Amino acid sequence: MIIVLRPDAAPEAAQQILERIEAAGLKPLHMPGSERVVLGALGDERVLAELQLESDPRVESVKPILAPYKLVSRELHPHDTIVRIGGMAIGGGRFEVIAGPCAVENREQLRNTAVAVKAAGASGLRAGAYKPRTSPYGFAGHGPAGLKLLREVGDETGLPVITEVMDTADLDIIVNHADALQIGARNMQNFALLRAVGKTRLPVVLKRGMSAKIEELLLAAEYLLAAGNEQVVVVERGIRTFETATRNTLDLNAIPYIKQKTHLPVLVDPSHGTGIRDFVAPMALAAAACGADGLLIEVHENPAVALSDGAQSLYPHQFEALMATLRPVVKAVGREL
Amino acid sequence: MIIVLRPDAAPEAAQQILERIEAAGLKPLHMPGSERVVLGALGDERVLAELQLESDPRVESVKPILAPYKLVSRELHPHDTIVRIGGMAIGGGRFEVIAGPCAVENREQLRNTAVAVKAAGASGLRAGAYKPRTSPYGFAGHGPAGLKLLREVGDETGLPVITEVMDTADLDIIVNHADALQIGARNMQNFALLRAVGKTRLPVVLKRGMSAKIEELLLAAEYLLAAGNEQVVVVERGIRTFETATRNTLDLNAIPYIKQKTHLPVLVDPSHGTGIRDFVAPMALAAAACGADGLLIEVHENPAVALSDGAQSLYPHQFEALMATLRPVVKAVGREL
Amino acid sequence: MIIVLRPDAAPEAAQQILERIEAAGLKPLHMPGSERVVLGALGDERVLAELQLESDPRVESVKPILAPYKLVSRELHPHDTIVRIGGMAIGGGRFEVIAGPCAVENREQLRNTAVAVKAAGASGLRAGAYKPRTSPYGFAGHGPAGLKLLREVGDETGLPVITEVMDTADLDIIVNHADALQIGARNMQNFALLRAVGKTRLPVVLKRGMSAKIEELLLAAEYLLAAGNEQVVVVERGIRTFETATRNTLDLNAIPYIKQKTHLPVLVDPSHGTGIRDFVAPMALAAAACGADGLLIEVHENPAVALSDGAQSLYPHQFEALMATLRPVVKAVGREL
Amino acid sequence: MIIVLRPDAAPEAAQQILERIEAAGLKPLHMPGSERVVLGALGDERVLAELQLESDPRVESVKPILAPYKLVSRELHPHDTIVRIGGMAIGGGRFEVIAGPCAVENREQLRNTAVAVKAAGASGLRAGAYKPRTSPYGFAGHGPAGLKLLREVGDETGLPVITEVMDTADLDIIVNHADALQIGARNMQNFALLRAVGKTRLPVVLKRGMSAKIEELLLAAEYLLAAGNEQVVVVERGIRTFETATRNTLDLNAIPYIKQKTHLPVLVDPSHGTGIRDFVAPMALAAAACGADGLLIEVHENPAVALSDGAQSLYPHQFEALMATLRPVVKAVGREL
Repeated sequence: MIIVLRPDAAPEAAQQILERIEAAGLKPLHMPGSERVVLGALGDERVLAELQLESDPRVESVKPILAPYKLVSRELHPHDTIVRIGGMAIGGGRFEVIAGPCAVENREQLRNTAVAVKAAGASGLRAGAYKPRTSPYGFAGHGPAGLKLLREVGDETGLPVITEVMDTADLDIIVNHADALQIGARNMQNFALLRAVGKTRLPVVLKRGMSAKIEELLLAAEYLLAAGNEQVVVVERGIRTFETATRNTLDLNAIPYIKQKTHLPVLVDPSHGTGIRDFVAPMALAAAACGADGLLIEVHENPAVALSDGAQSLYPHQFEALMATLRPVVKAVGREL
Repeated sequence: MIIVLRPDAAPEAAQQILERIEAAGLKPLHMPGSERVVLGALGDERVLAELQLESDPRVESVKPILAPYKLVSRELHPHDTIVRIGGMAIGGGRFEVIAGPCAVENREQLRNTAVAVKAAGASGLRAGAYKPRTSPYGFAGHGPAGLKLLREVGDETGLPVITEVMDTADLDIIVNHADALQIGARNMQNFALLRAVGKTRLPVVLKRGMSAKIEELLLAAEYLLAAGNEQVVVVERGIRTFETATRNTLDLNAIPYIKQKTHLPVLVDPSHGTGIRDFVAPMALAAAACGADGLLIEVHENPAVALSDGAQSLYPHQFEALMATLRPVVKAVGREL
Repeated sequence: MIIVLRPDAAPEAAQQILERIEAAGLKPLHMPGSERVVLGALGDERVLAELQLESDPRVESVKPILAPYKLVSRELHPHDTIVRIGGMAIGGGRFEVIAGPCAVENREQLRNTAVAVKAAGASGLRAGAYKPRTSPYGFAGHGPAGLKLLREVGDETGLPVITEVMDTADLDIIVNHADALQIGARNMQNFALLRAVGKTRLPVVLKRGMSAKIEELLLAAEYLLAAGNEQVVVVERGIRTFETATRNTLDLNAIPYIKQKTHLPVLVDPSHGTGIRDFVAPMALAAAACGADGLLIEVHENPAVALSDGAQSLYPHQFEALMATLRPVVKAVGREL
Repeated sequence: MIIVLRPDAAPEAAQQILERIEAAGLKPLHMPGSERVVLGALGDERVLAELQLESDPRVESVKPILAPYKLVSRELHPHDTIVRIGGMAIGGGRFEVIAGPCAVENREQLRNTAVAVKAAGASGLRAGAYKPRTSPYGFAGHGPAGLKLLREVGDETGLPVITEVMDTADLDIIVNHADALQIGARNMQNFALLRAVGKTRLPVVLKRGMSAKIEELLLAAEYLLAAGNEQVVVVERGIRTFETATRNTLDLNAIPYIKQKTHLPVLVDPSHGTGIRDFVAPMALAAAACGADGLLIEVHENPAVALSDGAQSLYPHQFEALMATLRPVVKAVGREL
C-alpha cells in the first residue's frame, strides 16, 4: 500500500504514520520527494485496510498494491475451479448452457420449455420461484409452489435446476428443492444473504450487480468462499450505463479480466445483458468466443405471453437455432458444447 | 400507453393487440401512420404493464404515459407528507439535520459524538449496528450489542435514533431499539426487506441505490406504502458515474425532481455523496439551497481512527462550523433550522 | 410523434398544438384520456422536431416514434453498404483487419510494423500523424512529416492507409496522403469537421464517442451522408462507464444493434475498447463472433517504447497469434478472413 | 510515480526500469515486497509520463502521485485568478450571472431577451451564432450574421457578449465580434481548437465535456494556459449518467473539488445541467451555495417558440424571480450579486 501525504502535512506526520504501520506488523517505507512525502507499507493489505489511513486528515491518498480479495484470487489458487451442478462441469473444457424461463408460471409452461431446451442441448434448467420486481405491482413468483414444480420438472427431464434466493428466510426451503442457488444482481451486495448462502453446500451462481465493479463482484464471491462455500460461479449480465438502446450494456471485457484474476468459472447472461430477443444470439456467440465457460439464457415456450422478461426471452425454435450456430464457434475456440 | 408496431407487423397484428387491450378493460386507440402503426391504450397503466406488450414480437416499442408508481405520487396526494421521528418533523417548514458516526464502535465514541452533534444543533442521531461492507474482512458492526448502546445513548441525549436494517431476520430486534429504520443503498431493491419493513409502524429512511434511477427509488418507496407504511423519507446519497474524483456523484437534480413527483420528504447525505470530508459542508449548503428537507451527515469524535467511513466523517468542530454556515442559507430559502 | 400534455394544461392547449401540427403539414391526432391528454403527429418526424413542442410549458413530454436519422437507416436503404478502401471491401462477406501503430513515430517503426501486420494477414494500415492527447505535454504526432511517411510505407507495402483528421484546417493535406479518413472518438460531434469530411470523396472511418449513444453515432454518420459522402464505416471502440478495471467498456451489444438499424458497415476497435494488451485478442474474437465487419487493432514493433498507447498495443507475434485464432471463429460465423 | 511490477517479472526487470527512471533525471526507489516489487520515481511526473512505463509488459500498474496539470494547479499558483469579461470580474468576491438565449435567432428576440436579463441583474449576455446540433437537420445558427447582431445588441445594452467557437476556421471572425469565447462541451477535447483559442487574448469560457472527468477538464484548461491564455473560466454543465429523468446530471461535487485544485474560477450552467426549465432555479441556488463564482443561464423571450433548447430556457419573468431568490443565498455565503 502506498500512502501519499498532503503537501501541508507536518513533518512529524510521516513518522507517526510509519509507526502505526509498523505496529500493525507491516514493513514501513519512507520516500520523501520534493513535492510530496510518500510512505509505503508492505505486507498483507487486508491488515492495512483496517488501519483506515485514508481517514487521517494528513493523508492525501492511499493506493493499494494488491487486490482486496484473497480466496478467489488466482495468485493463491492458480488452477481453474470446476463447479459441478448435476451433470454439468462449469469451468473445465466444456461450454455449458443453462436455459429456461424467467419465472415458473405453471406446470405446462415449465415442462414444455424444459423439454425444448433439453432437446436443443441445454444441460441445466433455470427458472425463478421468487422474482425481484422493480414495481410492487409486478408478478413476484409463486414461491414454494413454484419450487415444487421446478423440482418435479427437473427430475422429470433430468436437468439440474438453478433458482434464485432473495431472502435468508427462504433459504431452507430453496436448498431443499434446488441443485444450485442463484444470487441475483440486486442482491450481489446483500451481505447477510451472502453469508447465509456461503454456509450451505449447494453450488452458487452469483450475478454481477448492475453497477458493481468487477472487483466488487469478486469480493462478493470472497464472502461465499470465506463462509466455506467454494462452489461459486460468477455471471456477467450487463451493467448500467448511459446507453438506452439496450436494457443493459453487456460488459464482455469482464470475461478475460475475470479469467485472469480468479480461478472461479464465469458465465454470461446475454438475455439480461441486452434485454432484447434479437440480440441474445449474437451476444451468446461473442461470449463463447471471448472465453466464457457457458451461458445463462431465458427461453419461454411463448414469450409473447410471459409474465416477466418476455421481451428478452427466446422462442424455443430461436434457442435451437442459437445452439446450432453456437457449436462451431465453441469448437473454434477449442471447447466442447 | 403507446404501442408502436414493427414496420413488418402483419395487418391483423393491430386488431389482435387492440382486442387484448380492450379485454383488459382499457380504451384502445388505432393510429395508422405511413411509416408505423401506433396503438394507444388509455387507462390504468399498471394493468397495461401486466399485458407485457413489449414481449410481442410484432411490437417495436411500448411507451408509458403515466408514472409507474401511484401511492407515492403527488398527483394522487398533492400535500406534503410530514414524517415524524422523535421530535423531528421532516417535510414541513423545518430543515432537520441527522448526524452521527457511521458505526457504533463503543459507548464512549457514540456518546461523545452524540453529545457533540446535539450541542451543534442536530436533531437526530444516526449510527449503524449492522454495517454493509464490500469486503468480508471489514468491520461489520456490533449487532445487538451496538443496538443496545445506541438506544441508551439516544435516551441519554434525547435524540431519536436511526439505524440500518440489512436483513429481514434482524428486523424484530432493530424495531425494538430504534426510532426509525434505515434501508441502505445496497438494499434499496431488496424487495423482501422492503415488504417486511413496510409492515412495521416505524418511520423509514430509504436511501437511493447507487445506480438507481429516481423512478426506481420511488417504486421502492411504493413498496413500503403498498405494504401499509406511509412514514417514508427518501434520501439522495450520490450515484455511481464515471467520475472518480469523488466517491459518488451527488445528484442534486434529484431534489427538485423528487419534490415535484412525490409528497414524501427528501434528505441529502453529502457524506456518502462525496466521500471526502472537505466537500461535505459545501454540498450540505447546496442541498439546503435546492429544497431538501434536511441532511444525513457522518460525524465521528475522531475520524482518523474510525473503523469505517472515516475519510468522509466530519470532526465535531467541523460539524459545528457547518451548522453555523448552514443557518443563513436555510433561512435564505425560507426555512428554519 | 406522441405529445403528452401536463395534467394542468388548459383545455384549449390541445387544440392550439394540434393546429401547429397541422400547419406543419402533419396529420394530427387527439387522444383525450382520463389522466392525460395525448396528442399524435404522424408524418416526417424531422419536420416535427423543428416544432420543438417539448419547449411548450403545457407539454409534459414528447416521444418520437421514428428514428431521427434517415439516410443511414436500413428502413430506407435495406441493402448493406460496402465501403472500399484500397483492396478492402468492408461490409460484404469478408472480415477485414486494419492494424498498425497508434502514431507514426519514425520510418523504421512504421515500416517494420506495417510489414509485420501485412505478413500476419492485415489488409489495411492505421497510424496517426495528428494525435489527440489529453495532456498538452503528450506527443501529438509529427503532422505533415508523419503523413508523408505513412503514404510512403503504404505504397511500399501495398496496404491502404487510414489516418485521423482532427481539424478542418488539416483536411486538404490529409486527403492528399490517405486512403481513408478517421474521425476519432473525441471529434465524433465536431460538426464542422463532419460537414467538411462529408464533402470529400474519401471513405470515412467514424469512431463512436466515448459517451455517445448509438443513436448519436448514427446521427454523426448522417452528417457525412447528408453532406454527400456515403462511404462511411462506423466503429465501436468502447464507452465510458463506472468500471475502471479496463480503460473503456467495449459495448458489443452495439454491433447487432447497428447492423439492424443501418446499412453501414461496422468495425470494432478492441485496443481502445479494453486499453489492455492481454484483452485485445479475446475481444477481437468476440467482435468477429457477434457480427462485426472487421477490426481496428493497434500493433507496434516494440510497444514497451511506444510514444503513445503502448499498454494496449500488441507485439507483432501477438498479432500473428491473434490472426491465427481469429480465422476459425470468422469461418464459424460464415465469413472469410 | 509508483510502478508495480507483475508477480512474474524477471528479477532484472526492476534494475532495468530503475535505470530508465534515473536516465530521465528522476530519483529512483526500489521497494521489494513479498508479493510485489514496487518501484518509485520521484520528480516531475510529466517527464515520467513520457516514459510510458505502463507499456512495459513487466509492469502491472503505474500510479501517479501528482496531478498531471501544472499551470492551472493551485499548488503552483495559490491565489484565485480573476477573469475579467467587460465589467464582470469572475472569481473574486462577486457572483456573476451570464444569461441569454441558446441561439441568436433574430434582432428582436435577442434584444428583448438581453434587455430583460439586464433589467433582472445579469451582467453578461450569452448567445450562439454557431450551434452544435446532434442532428444535421437541426438549426445550426446564423453564423456571421448572428455574430453581427450579437455585437450590436451587446453594445446597445452595455452587456459583454460570450459566444461559442466550434471550428478553428471561424476563430478570426468570432474574435472580432465577441468579448469572450466559449468552448462547448462537445469541443472540450478538440485540441486543435484549444491550441488556437489559447493563442488569442480573449477570455475563454471552457465547458466540461459531458463525459469528461474533472481532471480532463483541468487538462483542457492547461492547453489554454500552456498556449499563453490565462483568462480561463471553467464551467460545470452536467455529465452523462444512467439517470434519464433529467437531460444531464449536474455534478456540483465538482465545484468544491475544482476550487481546491485550481486557481481558475468556475461557473455552473444549470440549464444544460438539468435540461428542464422547472429545475433551473433550484440548481442555480445550489450552485451559489456550494461556492461557484457565477452562473450561465439560458433565457428566451418566448421559450415555447425557441429554435433550440426551449425546454430548458427560462421565461424572462422566471429569470427575474430566480435573481430575487438568488440574492439572499449569495449573501448567506458571503458574496455579492
